[in-house]
Amino acid sequence: MKTLGFYNGKYDEIEQMTVPMNDRVCYFGDGVYDATMARNYRIYALDEHLDRIFRSMEALRITPPTNKKSMGELLQTLTKKLDDGDQFVYWQVTRGTGDRDHAFSSGPSNLWVTLRPRKPKDTYAPIRLISTEDTRFYHCNVKTLNLIPSVLASQKAAEAGVDECVFVRDGYVTECAHSNVHIFQNGVFVTHPADCLILPGIARAHLINYCKKNGILVDERPFTYEEMLLADEVLVSSSGSFCLRATQIDGKDVGGKALDAVRMMQNAMVEDFLKETEASE
Amino acid sequence: MKTLGFYNGKYDEIEQMTVPMNDRVCYFGDGVYDATMARNYRIYALDEHLDRIFRSMEALRITPPTNKKSMGELLQTLTKKLDDGDQFVYWQVTRGTGDRDHAFSSGPSNLWVTLRPRKPKDTYAPIRLISTEDTRFYHCNVKTLNLIPSVLASQKAAEAGVDECVFVRDGYVTECAHSNVHIFQNGVFVTHPADCLILPGIARAHLINYCKKNGILVDERPFTYEEMLLADEVLVSSSGSFCLRATQIDGKDVGGKALDAVRMMQNAMVEDFLKETEASE
Repeated sequence: MKTLGFYNGKYDEIEQMTVPMNDRVCYFGDGVYDATMARNYRIYALDEHLDRIFRSMEALRITPPTNKKSMGELLQTLTKKLDDGDQFVYWQVTRGTGDRDHAFSSGPSNLWVTLRPRKPKDTYAPIRLISTEDTRFYHCNVKTLNLIPSVLASQKAAEAGVDECVFVRDGYVTECAHSNVHIFQNGVFVTHPADCLILPGIARAHLINYCKKNGILVDERPFTYEEMLLADEVLVSSSGSFCLRATQIDGKDVGGKALDAVRMMQNAMVEDFLKETEASE
Repeated sequence: MKTLGFYNGKYDEIEQMTVPMNDRVCYFGDGVYDATMARNYRIYALDEHLDRIFRSMEALRITPPTNKKSMGELLQTLTKKLDDGDQFVYWQVTRGTGDRDHAFSSGPSNLWVTLRPRKPKDTYAPIRLISTEDTRFYHCNVKTLNLIPSVLASQKAAEAGVDECVFVRDGYVTECAHSNVHIFQNGVFVTHPADCLILPGIARAHLINYCKKNGILVDERPFTYEEMLLADEVLVSSSGSFCLRATQIDGKDVGGKALDAVRMMQNAMVEDFLKETEASE
């Protein structure tokens, strides 16, 4: 298959797949998702992503459609059906199906998977950013399907011809439309604390670990837009792009003053990815 | 037909309807909706609801799937297909269909309609409320399909055995999970200003008009949770329930001190509804 769309046991090419009009996602965006990359049919950091989607379901009181182990096995099995082993592995759980009603019954939730051929972004290629006001809700720690502000921010970046859009709330940088953002400042890795204003990124957690292993101090605190402009480096992380270095924000040059530290983190992420997704015999 | 689900020209009983997995609503909740009641196959305040969904589309830069007049005619035509002329008329526009990507292309949007037999709530029956923290985004003036906080609040109300849940942001009352909320205080009708924290309700606009016609002062300003508890009356309005009087909030008795004014507004709304939806020959 070229792509795969899966919904509660049925699957086909994504474009051929349909879902019930009464799935609660259609009326409320009522669901959670997670996503990562596969290489050689092996899914990167699967356990961490499974842990997170189960935490997301718990936060929204969505009953898991299956247990963590079965969900992981299903994802691994489905990846094998694609012609290409290098994939964007995306899955979501929606609260259930039924007559439109804000309050929810205890019916079963729905499990969706989509697989598409894709390779990780070149993490060594510098990127450019713009910023926008963070108008999002206070549930950004949950990976929900309520993503309109991120959609609008991403579109703004696309129209500006740049790669990502940074959210700024009351002067403080939170995260990007679909990545986390961090700075290097006087040798310290500064990143917004994992509260309700950002997604606790799995790449972010890896970066924190690499810093700690390499004797780089980590400061989990909010930093301002001005601090970002003046930082030694500005980094954007996600499971699909690892650790990107930004060279421009809102048309102003940034970073470029701690390239060794950046390169160490990029190499560490890429090496882990390659090791974890080596072709199995 | 018992119910009707419509998607881009195809229709059937709602439960039989499916939609493409790649509709952007499935990944991002990327769409807007509106809803009202029909009686005798005539749709209540249709033009105002059409105006609002077109404003919602504009706010999110969604290309309308058709013009306002055609959308209204379609809704009127579809209502005739139901056995029952008293209906909940719900429709939504989603941004389009395509490969999952936050940024959007300029492809056509999708038009959805669902019709279900329903009568308006008895607006004279008192209701009870609970409150919860308003954790929503700053786009509440747009009637979007990003409704998880309203879903959770409604569920909280259902589990408490009450009718609606009031959102409180930084001590100030904004609105309810799926209605507006107002108070009567010393003869003045006080209601949150129509900014990005509340939906500009059509029933709310009607209530403001009735007040003005009847010499009741209107003050569009945020009011606190404590003011609500001490108010002469607490009113909850929507196009499906008109103007409900709350008698209890978080277990505390409220209101009951300006019943004449409440009755005037309830009667005015019901009369307008009945007049506008009289059986045509």
